[in-house]
Amino acid sequence: KCLGKTESLEKVLVTYVLEAELREVRRLLFGKEPKKLNLPQSAIDAAVEQDFDLKGYVFEASPEQLRPPRTVRVGLIQNKLVLPPDAPVLEQIKALHKRVGEMVEVAAMCGVNIVCFQEACTMPFAFCTREREPWTEFAESAEDGLTTRFCIQLAKNYNMVVVSPILERDEIHGGTLWNTAVVVSNNGNVLGKSRKNHIPRVGDFNESTYYMEGNTGHRDTVPDTVWKRLQLTSLDCSGIVFLYSIMLMLVLCYSEPMWPIEARNAAIANHCFTCTISRVGMEYFKNEFTFGDGKKAHHDFGNFYGSSYVAAPDGSRSPGLSRTRDGLLLTEMDLNLNRQVADKWNFKMTGRYEMYAEELKKAIQHDFKPNILKE
Amino acid sequence: KCLGKTESLEKVLVTYVLEAELREVRRLLFGKEPKKLNLPQSAIDAAVEQDFDLKGYVFEASPEQLRPPRTVRVGLIQNKLVLPPDAPVLEQIKALHKRVGEMVEVAAMCGVNIVCFQEACTMPFAFCTREREPWTEFAESAEDGLTTRFCIQLAKNYNMVVVSPILERDEIHGGTLWNTAVVVSNNGNVLGKSRKNHIPRVGDFNESTYYMEGNTGHRDTVPDTVWKRLQLTSLDCSGIVFLYSIMLMLVLCYSEPMWPIEARNAAIANHCFTCTISRVGMEYFKNEFTFGDGKKAHHDFGNFYGSSYVAAPDGSRSPGLSRTRDGLLLTEMDLNLNRQVADKWNFKMTGRYEMYAEELKKAIQHDFKPNILKE
Repeated sequence: KCLGKTESLEKVLVTYVLEAELREVRRLLFGKEPKKLNLPQSAIDAAVEQDFDLKGYVFEASPEQLRPPRTVRVGLIQNKLVLPPDAPVLEQIKALHKRVGEMVEVAAMCGVNIVCFQEACTMPFAFCTREREPWTEFAESAEDGLTTRFCIQLAKNYNMVVVSPILERDEIHGGTLWNTAVVVSNNGNVLGKSRKNHIPRVGDFNESTYYMEGNTGHRDTVPDTVWKRLQLTSLDCSGIVFLYSIMLMLVLCYSEPMWPIEARNAAIANHCFTCTISRVGMEYFKNEFTFGDGKKAHHDFGNFYGSSYVAAPDGSRSPGLSRTRDGLLLTEMDLNLNRQVADKWNFKMTGRYEMYAEELKKAIQHDFKPNILKE
Repeated sequence: KCLGKTESLEKVLVTYVLEAELREVRRLLFGKEPKKLNLPQSAIDAAVEQDFDLKGYVFEASPEQLRPPRTVRVGLIQNKLVLPPDAPVLEQIKALHKRVGEMVEVAAMCGVNIVCFQEACTMPFAFCTREREPWTEFAESAEDGLTTRFCIQLAKNYNMVVVSPILERDEIHGGTLWNTAVVVSNNGNVLGKSRKNHIPRVGDFNESTYYMEGNTGHRDTVPDTVWKRLQLTSLDCSGIVFLYSIMLMLVLCYSEPMWPIEARNAAIANHCFTCTISRVGMEYFKNEFTFGDGKKAHHDFGNFYGSSYVAAPDGSRSPGLSRTRDGLLLTEMDLNLNRQVADKWNFKMTGRYEMYAEELKKAIQHDFKPNILKE
């Protein structure tokens, strides 16, 4: 309901702004324009056939003398639910596997090396309800649950790394729930997992009712956000070791103006690529629930706004996917750009981390006295 | 030269995008639209007369039961040099004082409580040259230099807090240079100073040739940027204690797409207002200098792009000032919004600072081993 009629910002700009100024407007808004990726006709046809948005872009780096280009193709998938939230749990999971599987097949046609799904990709965003049943039934083992087995199959079929964010049931620790991204290597092994670390406690985001802050100790240099960041490395692709980051985010329409800001800022501040996914569609729950804002109880969470995008370390970004349709965003990125930009700006060198480590340590003490200037 | 013909992004959008969709485009790009501030006709006339851009906006907060609104009016000034960089030093300083003084007078007509000038506001951005002479002659005492005395006079005349970023000569420590923002209270006392902490070492930004990382120990929660952040507090205004932040930034055209991202992200991540200023115009230096990129030596640094703006903690922002003209941006902000947004998102509570303090401490050790997942 807060989506309005705007399919995407990019589309409005293209519709109205004159060609002559459009280039400059785009530069101001989105940075250096990435090239379009050539997509095979079979993939384009399949996307039309299966009714999803398909876009592809290339982020290039300068040639170097000692390092060959380290290009990797990443696919981001955003999608609606297939069945309504009150359909039987197993049917919902299977229907989502089927839908995502079709899209991964198209990603494979386009030579994708790593694919990433949206947060809690097997289920409705049911945390808004605060009900336990049947939603906790969607939780599965990260190591050998239904979805991980599905991802292992995809990885092996397509020689593709799969990042699969699920609701995790941790049987070893008394059946604890986590919000976890499972990483399956292109050989079909579970490479690791990252548990969401900053759990929103905001309005309909009743996520802290379901799971606690993650304990997988990933390094995350963006403390003040609801993101979770995966640092992956050593994925062997054409004999080259590379390192990159993927961010997953799921947010609501009242946060939409922040959506293009946060992940892009993280790419700039950390000299890395960030890949940001939100789901689409409206999810209707049988039992009504309240937002905690004095307004009437409601049955839905509003529209998820999609607009998944990739931001590069030089501050440029891809256009977003649709705000309303399922979509697959393909990006070819030369990871050499990360160090090239780092060598230019040197934030890691001028960051004064020693000072911050020291000040942060002081600031978290209960008897901390801030440095306040008074007349 | 990299400015193109675009006066401002906002102007292009207003020119082309149909009214019906313009509102939605603006919401997506800039967040909730701030109201326009009513400006006295005398101020509007003076701005036309003196040829500068004048804009005013209001950021409102919800009414509370126990706290009255804590509104403060902030003025940001961006300007060109008045005299060319090869004019005599003292004449340049005096001409800039005169120009800024005129604009502060207009700010006073509009009831501004705090005014902030641009970085190194008394001088050309001469750091690009790496020459010492005559540029270091622009450095002055933060406590009783020419510009501080000028600001004290302004503060007393208009009952206004003045934030004055200068090149500082620190005679007590062997004549050390710093890039310093001096804060003069509305009573005309030097309340404190903040020395720039993240010194760019990028291309024409040869700033590290001139001064070192600051030692005034301000808290800055945005480590990976070239910003400096002032945390001020206890400025007594209508009997209310308030806290806010002001950011100063001066950057070049190749960074322009990052300009709307970084300060706005900081406002979101820190639940505060951020006020971001860049100068305008082109500065031509007699002796040529090189960028360090293999290109031919040049006499100028390109166009400074202005576009000064204010971002609010809820992710909304004011339109920017012009990319080419001198300007005064007025904003009335209710500082109650900071805590209201903080109470909504809770980033300070969910930030896991203990974990970051610990991990940062480890990460800065020379023998740190990152947590890397391998197959």
